[in-house]
Amino acid sequence: MEEHSTRNTAGAQDTAGTQETSGTQGTAGTQSTAGTQDTAGTQETSGTQGTASAQGTAGTQDTAGTQETSGTRGSLGRVVCILTGASRGFGYSLALELCSRVSPGSEILLVSRTEDAMRCLAEELGRKCPGVRALWQAADLGTQEGVAKVKEAAQELQGCHAAEKLIIVNNAGSLGDIRKSFVDFTDPEEVNKYFSFNVTSAMCLTASLLRAVPSRPGLQRAVVNVSSLAALKPQKSWTLYCSGKAARDMMFQVLATEEPDIRVLNYAPGPLDNEMQRQVRTETADPDIRRLFGEMKEKGQLVECGVSARKMIDLLVADSYQSGAHVDFFD
Amino acid sequence: MEEHSTRNTAGAQDTAGTQETSGTQGTAGTQSTAGTQDTAGTQETSGTQGTASAQGTAGTQDTAGTQETSGTRGSLGRVVCILTGASRGFGYSLALELCSRVSPGSEILLVSRTEDAMRCLAEELGRKCPGVRALWQAADLGTQEGVAKVKEAAQELQGCHAAEKLIIVNNAGSLGDIRKSFVDFTDPEEVNKYFSFNVTSAMCLTASLLRAVPSRPGLQRAVVNVSSLAALKPQKSWTLYCSGKAARDMMFQVLATEEPDIRVLNYAPGPLDNEMQRQVRTETADPDIRRLFGEMKEKGQLVECGVSARKMIDLLVADSYQSGAHVDFFD
Repeated sequence: MEEHSTRNTAGAQDTAGTQETSGTQGTAGTQSTAGTQDTAGTQETSGTQGTASAQGTAGTQDTAGTQETSGTRGSLGRVVCILTGASRGFGYSLALELCSRVSPGSEILLVSRTEDAMRCLAEELGRKCPGVRALWQAADLGTQEGVAKVKEAAQELQGCHAAEKLIIVNNAGSLGDIRKSFVDFTDPEEVNKYFSFNVTSAMCLTASLLRAVPSRPGLQRAVVNVSSLAALKPQKSWTLYCSGKAARDMMFQVLATEEPDIRVLNYAPGPLDNEMQRQVRTETADPDIRRLFGEMKEKGQLVECGVSARKMIDLLVADSYQSGAHVDFFD
Repeated sequence: MEEHSTRNTAGAQDTAGTQETSGTQGTAGTQSTAGTQDTAGTQETSGTQGTASAQGTAGTQDTAGTQETSGTRGSLGRVVCILTGASRGFGYSLALELCSRVSPGSEILLVSRTEDAMRCLAEELGRKCPGVRALWQAADLGTQEGVAKVKEAAQELQGCHAAEKLIIVNNAGSLGDIRKSFVDFTDPEEVNKYFSFNVTSAMCLTASLLRAVPSRPGLQRAVVNVSSLAALKPQKSWTLYCSGKAARDMMFQVLATEEPDIRVLNYAPGPLDNEMQRQVRTETADPDIRRLFGEMKEKGQLVECGVSARKMIDLLVADSYQSGAHVDFFD
């Protein structure tokens, strides 16, 4: 295993310190879309209310050799990754899986609204993958300010010049109000907020990051959209979720068509055993869907986040998917 | 032909007067999304700047028998229709075709931002189809106020209790800035405005109208989404257009799934010979697309709006499409 060390800009602490480089700046208001954001219903609110512009880095250590990496299942090499919706569920598992399969010197920028969860995750990454520098940025991607904050935070990534891969993972997403049917969506503000968080932020953040890290020899740039079967198949009670996922799939297909040197993957992770699924089972207006997913849960047919995350990283490592394709966990 | 007469609430004038029932109220600000709205680039601005809440009715006459109807190509019966993007292009043609194929006593509510054009259209409808009562509502569907205005205006429709069909046609749409590629969309405000006009308004207006005109025996409710091949197939330089159309197709598929008694049609009208196509030929960033559509124009391969409008009304009359299906002009 290659030995490598990185230090974060604020000086590394032993075993992945929780030191924040910038502290918590500002408290720029609480967000009105709170309840439906990130990947589930039960909102974790961190100590810093509003978590406006808290940004931190989990320092990494000079020690090497303790990192679970690459080896057995194939490595992504030296990576710079930006991952949204990182604080829990599939995003949390993705962060762990990805960081265990990169070369030392890699960096990951975690993004979500919940700072405490990201700090814990960054600490865990620091312990398990000490060759990886983990930064986090608390941001509400449903707002322009949130998108801008992540763009700024990405400037702190130091490994872009030496990285073999830039990986942008658009994982953040919400179900919308699944207690409603199509005919209940009479309020433009609710719908606009949904699309702002679920579609606009993914488009604008991806575009901004691709501009910030331009093409160069030796660098492969990959963009992942965490999609869903709902992008292809209409589901009762999921008006916003289905149409948002369809819009995302399509816009990333356009990106793939326009930029042949960028690898684009629309990955549907399967019916995950996570908080969002609990919401599906309990809140979906349509009783058939509630029953269907309830039975899948009972029968143990839901997919563990870690298993699906591994499949996704396998796809990125193998790098044989058609750019722009929609690939399902079950494919 | 059945003889029938209607009068508008303000008293009918001979040969479809241009009388406005409510005059032009307010001037609620100019809209910043102006350039990209409605179905093309060259924005017609009516005399009343902002056209905030100008609402009018083109009175219909007691005379009967001059209406070109139904007969030869099949009639839709007695219809109440709400049509967005009605002032020109495909919407204009649709209004003419639809009104020529309904029974007397039918009503149409025209919606667009350009009041003058709608007044002219309403006059034309009054002359050609005197059994049809034509109302219009100037509104910017990119705003919540615009959506609310149309909901209010729909309350003026008197024929709902006697109609055999309610037809909601979501035709309004814009290309977005096709001079840009995906990586150029770094501004959330621009993207949010696009989705607000192209997706949110169609969802919220349709939902509101379906709630305002509930199911009853003898009434068939139909919802049409004017879609595009771009909803299915990614096109370079059309990030917003493709993803917006994909979102629309999907949300109307969800509606079809949820409401089996509502007929839902995603109709792709083909490459129309209209202003939007001129914009496509001249503004699309990708040179291949500009060339492709330029050649189609030269070779006379673009579809006349009236021809495609007829095909769409034929589909509604035949009523044999699968609800929620995407049907192309060339199908």
